[in-house]
Amino acid sequence: MRKYNFNPGPAMIPPSVLEEAAESLREYKNMGMSLAEMSHRSPAFLAIIEEATALVKQLYGLGSDFEVVWMPGGASAQLAIVPMNLVSPRQSIAIADTGYWATKAIKAASEICQVRILGSSKDTNYDRTPAVPLDKSGKNWVVSKGTQYLHVVSNETIDGTQYHEYPNACLPNSRAQVPLVADMTSDFLSRPLPLDKFGIIFASAQKNFGMAGVTCVVIRKDMLARSEKRTIPTIFNYKTHVSTQSLYHTCPTFPIYVSMLALRWTLAQGGLSEMQKRNTEKATLLYNEVDRNPLFEGSVVPKDRSVMNVCFRAINPAVEAAFLDFAEKNDIVGIKGFPTVGGFRASMYNAMPFESVQVLVDLMKDFEKRN
Amino acid sequence: MRKYNFNPGPAMIPPSVLEEAAESLREYKNMGMSLAEMSHRSPAFLAIIEEATALVKQLYGLGSDFEVVWMPGGASAQLAIVPMNLVSPRQSIAIADTGYWATKAIKAASEICQVRILGSSKDTNYDRTPAVPLDKSGKNWVVSKGTQYLHVVSNETIDGTQYHEYPNACLPNSRAQVPLVADMTSDFLSRPLPLDKFGIIFASAQKNFGMAGVTCVVIRKDMLARSEKRTIPTIFNYKTHVSTQSLYHTCPTFPIYVSMLALRWTLAQGGLSEMQKRNTEKATLLYNEVDRNPLFEGSVVPKDRSVMNVCFRAINPAVEAAFLDFAEKNDIVGIKGFPTVGGFRASMYNAMPFESVQVLVDLMKDFEKRN
Repeated sequence: MRKYNFNPGPAMIPPSVLEEAAESLREYKNMGMSLAEMSHRSPAFLAIIEEATALVKQLYGLGSDFEVVWMPGGASAQLAIVPMNLVSPRQSIAIADTGYWATKAIKAASEICQVRILGSSKDTNYDRTPAVPLDKSGKNWVVSKGTQYLHVVSNETIDGTQYHEYPNACLPNSRAQVPLVADMTSDFLSRPLPLDKFGIIFASAQKNFGMAGVTCVVIRKDMLARSEKRTIPTIFNYKTHVSTQSLYHTCPTFPIYVSMLALRWTLAQGGLSEMQKRNTEKATLLYNEVDRNPLFEGSVVPKDRSVMNVCFRAINPAVEAAFLDFAEKNDIVGIKGFPTVGGFRASMYNAMPFESVQVLVDLMKDFEKRN
Repeated sequence: MRKYNFNPGPAMIPPSVLEEAAESLREYKNMGMSLAEMSHRSPAFLAIIEEATALVKQLYGLGSDFEVVWMPGGASAQLAIVPMNLVSPRQSIAIADTGYWATKAIKAASEICQVRILGSSKDTNYDRTPAVPLDKSGKNWVVSKGTQYLHVVSNETIDGTQYHEYPNACLPNSRAQVPLVADMTSDFLSRPLPLDKFGIIFASAQKNFGMAGVTCVVIRKDMLARSEKRTIPTIFNYKTHVSTQSLYHTCPTFPIYVSMLALRWTLAQGGLSEMQKRNTEKATLLYNEVDRNPLFEGSVVPKDRSVMNVCFRAINPAVEAAFLDFAEKNDIVGIKGFPTVGGFRASMYNAMPFESVQVLVDLMKDFEKRN
């Protein structure tokens, strides 16, 4: 029997995707070999990567001003590769310190360029998105003169916060918009996007669309010109991957194939509006129980709670171990919180069915009765 | 029926490895989830990566002076990451231009440091390893003063040449040895190694030990000190991966698992001496036929012929298409040569059984009779 898998990532994958991937690992389409034994330049694999790219474009409705590439590694690599491509060492970028992944982004970018931190919620243990400088309207973020882009962690996987609206970032006394670079690793494909705000979007596959080992990068074409006057290692230059349809090197073929299957699944389920609807329903179900149940409380202020990663804790810490044990005995796995946050975290990406969240909620009610 | 798969990479994988990997992709060890749905920090995966590392150490007999790490991506990434870690922009390295992969290494390193080319066999279309400056004994390579390492392409996958003995690289008028950095992507695990010569060895998995998406890097510990005075992006610093047992980020878990299975298979077959024996037998079988058969000729001078990638051509180019067609109709795939070399290339990595090479040889004899 399959567990109710609330792992934060690598996370659950739709069973039909796993089934088809396993079959193709044995033998792909009666071709007498595994998909993993084929060239990345074979017609069979070219059809796969082209479909994966087309599905990302279709799901988000990306126009011809965007490119989609597939790169090995995960978000940690992109935290270096983005500033390598977009800014010179003396140029500056802005980041709001939202938590674990913003901290990683600040460290990685600081090795490459100047970083201005707009605000931080560290003092409240990242239980909310931080206050940042706003313009007179109170709606737009104001970044310093010369800021090349604003790095946004769309969803903080570990801390359980999420931007429900993406900021407009403006230069001082100006309406000039600064592009967003969004680390969307834990909420890619979870909802439609206001595309005009983004310069770069990146997401590794192992949360919402497949297995670890590959990252999808969406690049607005004008971003590619930013590296023109610098030498970047060819393999880390976005232009290399754009101009070769991600085939400059032997790309991670099997992980890309699994992503393609997960993207097909996402489309077949109804696309991103449907994903948003389902994800909201799942999160509402669980947060309502967290708020109702006298044994538990949410770790994040309501307005900034993540739809993907629901962080909560026992009001009496002494019962935490008992609840974890009770959950495990009832086939629920992956809900232990990250050490810096503690408590519990239920990660509920696209592949997680409503019914599994209901099982967790029922168990919380059951646990309440027993305690 | 499985094809006789002579693909150059991604290449054939032992059927027992594919079978076990496919099963684990459905469900790992009755744990109620796929291996791809588990955390890279889960006890189950930690056991896998530890075993993979231990197997590389055991197979090569690596002592405590070597570290083994697993990184995403392939050789193209390491061609940049090695000089980033080992040399500053003003320092120089040496490379012998052996062909396609040496050319890529020269381009990648030139973006990061100074590169001195010791010799090239480009004039003869890379049909041999190039002549290089030797010392009085005629045995040791002489590199320029200040050279930090010698980059060696152990086996040129595309051109079909291989170093059957690794050079000793000395500074002028000195016995001081310069460490080798070896791109061993296409012959890793194919034979035992004279370990004392190497500073770094890297190899992506998709030829001799698994699927595309992960690279194994063997690092002599003293190499790690070379980056101390420079800022390298943390994610590309070997120290990061050494100090975290490759778990600084979410590593490509499933590709690493497949590598572990392939390493287990390699050990069970008898280890590297046995691999060397089998690989030599397979190559001898095919080269003997290439040399005997009046329709074909080898593309590489005999002394430098690769045991992994046998490059040959039709003496009458007009029959090449016919032989490719004949081979395909008889379930042999992957023997078309790379465009820069033309003709044929039969790639025969560890997983390729002798019997499959015999099928190809029999077909060449059959083709001779018909023509």
